[in-house]
Amino acid sequence: MAIEIDLNCDMGESFGIYKIGNDEEMMKYVTSISVGCGFHAGDPHVMRKTVNLAKKYGVAVGAHPGYPDLVGFGRRRLEATPEEVKDDILYQVGALKAFCAAAGVELQHVKPHGQLYMMAWRNEVLARGILEAIREIKLEPIFLALYNTIPYQMAKSMGVRVVGELYADLDYAPDGTTFIKKVHGEIDPEATVKKVLKMVLEGKVTSSEGKDIEVKGTSICFHGDNPRGPEIAQAVRRELEKKGVKIVPLRQQTL
Amino acid sequence: MAIEIDLNCDMGESFGIYKIGNDEEMMKYVTSISVGCGFHAGDPHVMRKTVNLAKKYGVAVGAHPGYPDLVGFGRRRLEATPEEVKDDILYQVGALKAFCAAAGVELQHVKPHGQLYMMAWRNEVLARGILEAIREIKLEPIFLALYNTIPYQMAKSMGVRVVGELYADLDYAPDGTTFIKKVHGEIDPEATVKKVLKMVLEGKVTSSEGKDIEVKGTSICFHGDNPRGPEIAQAVRRELEKKGVKIVPLRQQTL
Amino acid sequence: MAIEIDLNCDMGESFGIYKIGNDEEMMKYVTSISVGCGFHAGDPHVMRKTVNLAKKYGVAVGAHPGYPDLVGFGRRRLEATPEEVKDDILYQVGALKAFCAAAGVELQHVKPHGQLYMMAWRNEVLARGILEAIREIKLEPIFLALYNTIPYQMAKSMGVRVVGELYADLDYAPDGTTFIKKVHGEIDPEATVKKVLKMVLEGKVTSSEGKDIEVKGTSICFHGDNPRGPEIAQAVRRELEKKGVKIVPLRQQTL
Amino acid sequence: MAIEIDLNCDMGESFGIYKIGNDEEMMKYVTSISVGCGFHAGDPHVMRKTVNLAKKYGVAVGAHPGYPDLVGFGRRRLEATPEEVKDDILYQVGALKAFCAAAGVELQHVKPHGQLYMMAWRNEVLARGILEAIREIKLEPIFLALYNTIPYQMAKSMGVRVVGELYADLDYAPDGTTFIKKVHGEIDPEATVKKVLKMVLEGKVTSSEGKDIEVKGTSICFHGDNPRGPEIAQAVRRELEKKGVKIVPLRQQTL
Repeated sequence: MAIEIDLNCDMGESFGIYKIGNDEEMMKYVTSISVGCGFHAGDPHVMRKTVNLAKKYGVAVGAHPGYPDLVGFGRRRLEATPEEVKDDILYQVGALKAFCAAAGVELQHVKPHGQLYMMAWRNEVLARGILEAIREIKLEPIFLALYNTIPYQMAKSMGVRVVGELYADLDYAPDGTTFIKKVHGEIDPEATVKKVLKMVLEGKVTSSEGKDIEVKGTSICFHGDNPRGPEIAQAVRRELEKKGVKIVPLRQQTL
Repeated sequence: MAIEIDLNCDMGESFGIYKIGNDEEMMKYVTSISVGCGFHAGDPHVMRKTVNLAKKYGVAVGAHPGYPDLVGFGRRRLEATPEEVKDDILYQVGALKAFCAAAGVELQHVKPHGQLYMMAWRNEVLARGILEAIREIKLEPIFLALYNTIPYQMAKSMGVRVVGELYADLDYAPDGTTFIKKVHGEIDPEATVKKVLKMVLEGKVTSSEGKDIEVKGTSICFHGDNPRGPEIAQAVRRELEKKGVKIVPLRQQTL
Repeated sequence: MAIEIDLNCDMGESFGIYKIGNDEEMMKYVTSISVGCGFHAGDPHVMRKTVNLAKKYGVAVGAHPGYPDLVGFGRRRLEATPEEVKDDILYQVGALKAFCAAAGVELQHVKPHGQLYMMAWRNEVLARGILEAIREIKLEPIFLALYNTIPYQMAKSMGVRVVGELYADLDYAPDGTTFIKKVHGEIDPEATVKKVLKMVLEGKVTSSEGKDIEVKGTSICFHGDNPRGPEIAQAVRRELEKKGVKIVPLRQQTL
Repeated sequence: MAIEIDLNCDMGESFGIYKIGNDEEMMKYVTSISVGCGFHAGDPHVMRKTVNLAKKYGVAVGAHPGYPDLVGFGRRRLEATPEEVKDDILYQVGALKAFCAAAGVELQHVKPHGQLYMMAWRNEVLARGILEAIREIKLEPIFLALYNTIPYQMAKSMGVRVVGELYADLDYAPDGTTFIKKVHGEIDPEATVKKVLKMVLEGKVTSSEGKDIEVKGTSICFHGDNPRGPEIAQAVRRELEKKGVKIVPLRQQTL
């Protein structure tokens, strides 16, 4: 059976007259998007526009809830309680779900953003708060998570459908976690393609210390605030298809 | 057939450690609440707590979306476009609906807050924006509106179920609209009871210029930021019941 | 004696990772900047960076306070009270002044932003609130205002030093006010140069209805969120100098 | 020579229509106040009112800058960079200073709020950021700090005038730091008086583990969000004076 891979991108990160990302261009190459929900990025108007754009391009929609820290783009550690995190996530995902319902599209997945995501990698109570929020959303969306982290494992044990995510444009630490920076640097398209092929076909990535580590997942993440994003996503997609990989959004993957 | 009256109160207006209103005490006397949704008042944590409290007391839950103006408590005119208003409402109501779904309660109604409400009284495009947002929410909630204003009439013509609201604690202008202030003054319980009885039994209220005007509605509004609120609501409820009026939440009223 | 003209530009409008404007490039052609103060645009980090950049390029610094409406970029009418406006302005200008003091530069002027500016054109109490705030700032900065509007005249009568501002990139209404849009359209460099020369040399501009009206001022405004801004500012500066106009920041002009 | 003690209280923590603290009542018993600056609490209107009230009661004014986290009241850890902290502090203190200048009162001190304060106790770069911001404010205010923490010692070595602060209403850990909670519990007036007398007269306090530890400072802090605050401050002041202690604001203390 062919390998099935979803290509996802963070989108809807513009705010008011502030623009980030080339959302419409990226829509042409990805199969899923994770939409900012107004706390770390995005606003109600941007959310509607982004969901409508996804519908137009036949791309699946997920929520990308973050910390209430617009000036820090949700990329600063914030020690909210697990209850606060749970409620902040339910609020944001609920808001996005309303725009999905209005457009007649399904809410496919939830992927926590930035430090809200990273802090949960090593924090069981925080991870539980996130998963409890996801459970409260009807119909329960897929949880998109980094392989083998605490939230990934907890989702398995709680019976929440979880899909591992691979990062095209971030470096991996030796423990399999990734580095998220406030502003991302330039990315080399060729090296990215090579890295993705290795992750998908061999289940391996070279970590920041030079050694290969195991990675697992059927969704590849691209970041929206990267000017060369569309070009890279296009190249990755083309090369994956050349190798016989099927590009399929999460909800249609045969697990 | 007995007159059916719903008693509603704005709630969930606290924010972080800032407290407004005696929500739990008011729950004992009202049949519906309109919950702040995080723009002019309320936060995700307060929203969950308020919805859970309503469930405990068997009180119906509605959304109370407002302008994104916390420092002005949504009581300052803000010339957002109808599209912005529509998206801001869908966002806020969607967020509250998620907390309702999590608690297993239905979202009964939507009532715009403060100036967002008032500006629509005289503005057709704004009113349409609000009603379009309500239409997008599944299952379509009841629209709580001031009798004979533009949004009230438009709801009728658009086929949105609308219920007229009567104000226990606000003064009426000769044109039937009410005065909303940034901070409300003291209210006399006895005069309030008398005023409500007249509105419910005779369909009349004495306006600020001394003349009686026609009012119509089956839901009576109390404001949460009034220290004597519970006492007044209790008195109003008792006197209405003495007159044979049935106290019934909106969704259960036989229209 | 030669005509003296200041060239000013709105700057420091970025926020967190969101970027607006090509500030450093514009610095090369203007003599004054008006810096966003964190309410409608800008944040503390951006403010420091912008003031330091102005110091590096020898450009004079002014404050550009606006409504507390980041998502609307201060370009939506907000009916704050004159007291609220006064306090919001003092707060924002005080904050910017601290960054000026830290950098060892003087706070040259204050120019209200967007709708805060426009609403005062026709509102005496609002205009008075703005001018009272400016009076409270030590040392009293210059007030940059649209010629013949209420705030301009009130500044004269209150003895606040006021300088008229001319708009290179906005259209004029027949009453001499300008149109500020949420997002500005494309601007033709050649037409802009011609328009500025006419305003400076003849004291006239063609209004939106085709008739010439009187305009007066010694500071020309360019907007920062215009991609061709630097090119246009450079052309305007060159052509003014060709005509013998001296380019001089406000504080050094011989009034 | 008599011991000189300043009594300080956090004030100006209200926001919009949200009220915290009984500021005017507390003004009667304290000699200094630390005013919220709009990030974790307070708004421009509240700031002006608070500074004017302090002037009326002859109470010295200091700034109480915090994290940009209103919903968390600045009491959640937020990993801002030292540069962000420095700029956030300069912004907030600059804003408050403008209200002081307008009222004709001096800015006496700066005291970081909540977690911004606590995180610096164990973080040298953060402490340096705070002190650099204080240095940039003209005229340099006094730094109010917890005895023997990193910022306290760094202020000494940098030549910034620092005054140690003693906490009337917080518990001390064995290492001399205090516990700040999101919401403070009830406080016993009698025990508080006894505790303060011991701190002032013997330089000792009983820590949470039961052992006495050394404390040092000439300013005693009361929290504004404590309903019995005025009563406790009055009792503390009376008993200190009975013991011959002179109640003197920071700036007038003979160090």
